[in-house]
Amino acid sequence: MKMLRRKGIFSILLVLFGLTSILAQSRQEIRIPDILGYRTLKCDFHMHTVFSDGEVWPTIRVQEAWREGLDVIAITDHIEYRPHSSDMDADLNRSYDIAKPLADQLGIVLIRGVEITRNMPPGHLNAIFVKNANLLEREDWWEACVEAKEQGAFVFWNHPGWKVQQPEETVWWPEHTRLLNAGILKGIEIYNHREFYPEALQWAQEKNLVILGNSDIHEPISQEYDAPQKRPLTLVFSLDKTENGIKSALLDNRTAVLFNDTLIGERRFLTPIFISSIQLKSKKLNLQNQDIKYLQVYNNSDIPFKLEQRQPSVGFSCPKVIVLPPNRTVSIELTGTSDEVAQMPVLKMFYEATNLITKRGEKLPVNIDVPNK
Amino acid sequence: MKMLRRKGIFSILLVLFGLTSILAQSRQEIRIPDILGYRTLKCDFHMHTVFSDGEVWPTIRVQEAWREGLDVIAITDHIEYRPHSSDMDADLNRSYDIAKPLADQLGIVLIRGVEITRNMPPGHLNAIFVKNANLLEREDWWEACVEAKEQGAFVFWNHPGWKVQQPEETVWWPEHTRLLNAGILKGIEIYNHREFYPEALQWAQEKNLVILGNSDIHEPISQEYDAPQKRPLTLVFSLDKTENGIKSALLDNRTAVLFNDTLIGERRFLTPIFISSIQLKSKKLNLQNQDIKYLQVYNNSDIPFKLEQRQPSVGFSCPKVIVLPPNRTVSIELTGTSDEVAQMPVLKMFYEATNLITKRGEKLPVNIDVPNK
Amino acid sequence: MKMLRRKGIFSILLVLFGLTSILAQSRQEIRIPDILGYRTLKCDFHMHTVFSDGEVWPTIRVQEAWREGLDVIAITDHIEYRPHSSDMDADLNRSYDIAKPLADQLGIVLIRGVEITRNMPPGHLNAIFVKNANLLEREDWWEACVEAKEQGAFVFWNHPGWKVQQPEETVWWPEHTRLLNAGILKGIEIYNHREFYPEALQWAQEKNLVILGNSDIHEPISQEYDAPQKRPLTLVFSLDKTENGIKSALLDNRTAVLFNDTLIGERRFLTPIFISSIQLKSKKLNLQNQDIKYLQVYNNSDIPFKLEQRQPSVGFSCPKVIVLPPNRTVSIELTGTSDEVAQMPVLKMFYEATNLITKRGEKLPVNIDVPNK
Amino acid sequence: MKMLRRKGIFSILLVLFGLTSILAQSRQEIRIPDILGYRTLKCDFHMHTVFSDGEVWPTIRVQEAWREGLDVIAITDHIEYRPHSSDMDADLNRSYDIAKPLADQLGIVLIRGVEITRNMPPGHLNAIFVKNANLLEREDWWEACVEAKEQGAFVFWNHPGWKVQQPEETVWWPEHTRLLNAGILKGIEIYNHREFYPEALQWAQEKNLVILGNSDIHEPISQEYDAPQKRPLTLVFSLDKTENGIKSALLDNRTAVLFNDTLIGERRFLTPIFISSIQLKSKKLNLQNQDIKYLQVYNNSDIPFKLEQRQPSVGFSCPKVIVLPPNRTVSIELTGTSDEVAQMPVLKMFYEATNLITKRGEKLPVNIDVPNK
Repeated sequence: MKMLRRKGIFSILLVLFGLTSILAQSRQEIRIPDILGYRTLKCDFHMHTVFSDGEVWPTIRVQEAWREGLDVIAITDHIEYRPHSSDMDADLNRSYDIAKPLADQLGIVLIRGVEITRNMPPGHLNAIFVKNANLLEREDWWEACVEAKEQGAFVFWNHPGWKVQQPEETVWWPEHTRLLNAGILKGIEIYNHREFYPEALQWAQEKNLVILGNSDIHEPISQEYDAPQKRPLTLVFSLDKTENGIKSALLDNRTAVLFNDTLIGERRFLTPIFISSIQLKSKKLNLQNQDIKYLQVYNNSDIPFKLEQRQPSVGFSCPKVIVLPPNRTVSIELTGTSDEVAQMPVLKMFYEATNLITKRGEKLPVNIDVPNK
Repeated sequence: MKMLRRKGIFSILLVLFGLTSILAQSRQEIRIPDILGYRTLKCDFHMHTVFSDGEVWPTIRVQEAWREGLDVIAITDHIEYRPHSSDMDADLNRSYDIAKPLADQLGIVLIRGVEITRNMPPGHLNAIFVKNANLLEREDWWEACVEAKEQGAFVFWNHPGWKVQQPEETVWWPEHTRLLNAGILKGIEIYNHREFYPEALQWAQEKNLVILGNSDIHEPISQEYDAPQKRPLTLVFSLDKTENGIKSALLDNRTAVLFNDTLIGERRFLTPIFISSIQLKSKKLNLQNQDIKYLQVYNNSDIPFKLEQRQPSVGFSCPKVIVLPPNRTVSIELTGTSDEVAQMPVLKMFYEATNLITKRGEKLPVNIDVPNK
Repeated sequence: MKMLRRKGIFSILLVLFGLTSILAQSRQEIRIPDILGYRTLKCDFHMHTVFSDGEVWPTIRVQEAWREGLDVIAITDHIEYRPHSSDMDADLNRSYDIAKPLADQLGIVLIRGVEITRNMPPGHLNAIFVKNANLLEREDWWEACVEAKEQGAFVFWNHPGWKVQQPEETVWWPEHTRLLNAGILKGIEIYNHREFYPEALQWAQEKNLVILGNSDIHEPISQEYDAPQKRPLTLVFSLDKTENGIKSALLDNRTAVLFNDTLIGERRFLTPIFISSIQLKSKKLNLQNQDIKYLQVYNNSDIPFKLEQRQPSVGFSCPKVIVLPPNRTVSIELTGTSDEVAQMPVLKMFYEATNLITKRGEKLPVNIDVPNK
Repeated sequence: MKMLRRKGIFSILLVLFGLTSILAQSRQEIRIPDILGYRTLKCDFHMHTVFSDGEVWPTIRVQEAWREGLDVIAITDHIEYRPHSSDMDADLNRSYDIAKPLADQLGIVLIRGVEITRNMPPGHLNAIFVKNANLLEREDWWEACVEAKEQGAFVFWNHPGWKVQQPEETVWWPEHTRLLNAGILKGIEIYNHREFYPEALQWAQEKNLVILGNSDIHEPISQEYDAPQKRPLTLVFSLDKTENGIKSALLDNRTAVLFNDTLIGERRFLTPIFISSIQLKSKKLNLQNQDIKYLQVYNNSDIPFKLEQRQPSVGFSCPKVIVLPPNRTVSIELTGTSDEVAQMPVLKMFYEATNLITKRGEKLPVNIDVPNK
């Protein structure tokens, strides 16, 4: 019975009624600390609507993003694959245009995008920050990419390890080299929907590509991820929450990727995220030899941290494995093993965070310094 | 990256990939017992898609129904209110036609319907079991209704107490009398989305209208109801799970309405639902005077039962209020209060179920007979 | 197979094993802001163990408190009611002494207490901060109370409206006046377990008694409250988290009571809690006449706020009711209703928080000032 | 304020008040089908109370069992390890005697037991169905075991792979052979608390020992297992829910062990549990070559089933992996791959259930026969 707005028949009151109902819902913020003077924006740069092969109206993508605590999204309907087109009569800019007013109301930054959808190579490419999506509909994929560049778009390679296009192995093609050399290809998805591509992470580091993790969602988001807020995210470390700020951050390679409680990114970002997330809640321990003391550590973020000891501590022993669940405090047992420990002003603990990945196969080393004396 | 099916470009493998992903999800059955030789079908006869003012593609309505344990749905897009029409070029049968193949695959009975959408009177009317929805698009609402009747449709009045159309009071109009007398109007929603209309329940009983409770959902269903399976339902007591069986059941007034843990319907249906749902798990109690025994009652359905004592028992006392949560066993304390109790073969307890409503203001009386000796 | 510590038989390793297992669990912090330079301590001053009529070992009370984010507890076993005494051979200080080492490890402030357990009048009284509980075991209740005072205890009246002791009405007895006049009775439970006593709130204000809300838990806490952290709490606004700080705060009447999402306390505490909990997330609205803008409000605490408009705003309209769920952001619709609104630097909204109670029957007025221009 | 029962001071009403409060809670039944004419009883034969090194009063064990849907428990306090004994003055029968009346009220079968607690060998042994626990307190462990046998006890070896007692490897000692040969040792825990012992499973099969899985719980049960009902269970297939029936079932080796969604037991029990749990909800498929049909399978139990294809089907293909979540229906895609399939009356699918274990390293083969024509 909602949103009946036809003039003459339905009163203006209905407009309000409809919108109120949409907005009278709540948003769950995602707790990840801002770092290094940047805001940590939660972004998803890849999603579809009924205007390509998705199954929701564009405004739903904005509502979902707002509810799940996102700051930024790009709707990226396929250019070349629009299975609903016999029922729908709209151009490639339409899904953005429909969603934009609600995004403005709700404070979501909506970025105009499209998915250039070709067989491999070059496979599927997202172009975001385009100005007129229609101009990217070209017979020749290279021309589409050049047009994207001319519009100032940021172009990235989607799901490079998708089995449908690369069933045997995940390969970098000459076409990608050509795109890279032409200054068109700037980024690469290392995570898409439910898949991780370790090769893509390695290429990103070798070729200086920006890493992204996106949902590529087609259905209502709640049908695909078990818990709310469990879609993959691209974290963008941006000076502000504006389209320009986000674009600058991407061009400056300031991203990290979060999925399934794993965070991937450069050490310069991951270390401050860890440090800003945890908080020691105990006073000076005054640990003695043969003594046991308990260190309380609070993880104030929505990311769990799984720590494994990478080298023993001097003067005391501590657990080989520590799990710091999100928004929880954990009590950690330290045992004095030498007489010197009583004199140490700080107890040094050496771990690596097994769910914080800095390179293919490399985990973030983290140290915890505990005030002792 | 889903469902890329264009011939020549994408391989047939993709078709399978896409469908598997849709179907590789699970359905939660709703536990409400079959009664009186009928199947208790869980139905929602009122919902929208992008083809009127809804926000999802028609197949999503089928997926949602399947996941939430429904047996039957009708998609009922507005005839006269199609705000997306400038983007969409499709007739009134289209949303049904798109959804039907998936409904068949998943075993959901999909009924073709439309919503005749007018100012009050007569307000909004659903016509379900229509054959060609396009023929109901008429300038004159009466002609649309006559056409519906000629197509064999079952017509019911939607959200009769909707404040937008009847802000002051919920009134029955001469136009409804005319529809009733012409044998067109057969049913009435007593519950819509999140609203209950007690007047409609009373009219249903006075005028022999079939009661219905529907979601009238426009968004993805998970955005509107806090828990899965919490949408309102029309229960239809049908000989089989076929379109004909359901239509016969409606014409024979075999429905009940479930919403927010309240069940409304005739005593002939509610009593057997209660009786088939509960199960005494204790042996003979052998209750004595001054003695306390515990009766264990298992509620094997998904409907909670809230019982209030309506008259005292003879020979023993029992709680004034009993709550039987769904799928749980509860232990109830009985205390002997006279010497006769030891000789009673059966202990009789007299309650009414405050969430089982048989008429406006009337609760279902329920008796529990406990084997004693 | 846990905690086998007998010397000669079991190795020292077992000690560690047992404790690790206890502590390898996590604590969920309760988010309520610190205010006015005080720390907001979460306290429960009334609970039982197997040493009176409770059903858990004293250490369990500390574990429960730590897990549920509490800062302070008092174990208050009954003096006069010890139904397990035939199985247990321990004095009245024992439950505290057993629990204290674990409390110290986990950073929980454990306060020594007892419950003086008499028929009404005076009913049940808790004495906390006692030094030797055994000395309070007296034939004469008055002598027990005088002894409590001499030990420096803080004495409060428990569950004053308990139906077992006052089945007809909740009455203040001459005995309580005597305790008050003697400077013994300092506080009163306005909430106990699952019961609220509005009379007690009124007496507290008339007689300058400290209000408290406690669980009075006997079973494992998880058996009694549906969700974790849902036990009633006494909030104490204390300069520090020490026994002395807490006692000073109680004597200075710096408490509030939280139960079932209702917070009761003086306006001087509730206003800053509300203000520190919410955060406006929108920029200047620039609201115009006939225009609609959306204000986003983030509630950063674990207390929901339910607001009802107490007087209309000038120049714009806003919702009659606003619910701010905990840890969520809500979008609120404001509509310009006069030309002046465009010139207003600040939009003033006038509500009362229906779940923040300052006196019997009085709700906290709250204002929201929205930057506009 | 609960359970004040002292005569002369507190009225008889209080007794009722206290008990009502305990019992006014609900029990969640565990859905595992009865098989082969037996009842499938859910049992936990190993747990502690404050009378040894546990942390709850004995009645709590009965309440927990009732709430979590168990049918049978044994309280098995340590004989030789009673760290609370300086505070408690009670003999070894006491925990059973305290819990028994509540068990009778709630219909829980409570079995008298003790844990004979020695260094390895023979380690810890549970003796259940003892008549007088005190007589098992002996200097010599062999004498304790002989006494258990003379009382008709069923004796089993607890946590045989416990690292504290066997840090290097899990070994069978001559002492266990002696107990076995003497007809004393009848069973063995293959699962305890959170540990699985594959060696114990193998010994059980080689030596015809009864397998058991128990919680060995010391704390309130909700502190140890994340979800309710997630403690390990011994399933006993018994003619009736009586102490004698259970003992006969144990002596006849009619058990299975359920933990973390893994079920271990003989094929004669696991096959009927699987067959009785699942239900095909589709009609005849009429699958054709090149055609796709969907088979709906409902898992009516609380045990998930994880199936892996063990050999290909003839005439059609089906998924390599199927997961049947508890209480859910799943839709499975079948594709015709030959012309013969259209003539097959039944489509045969060949899987093994990877979470149903029949022997060390052996998974249960399961076949699904789908009506086709």
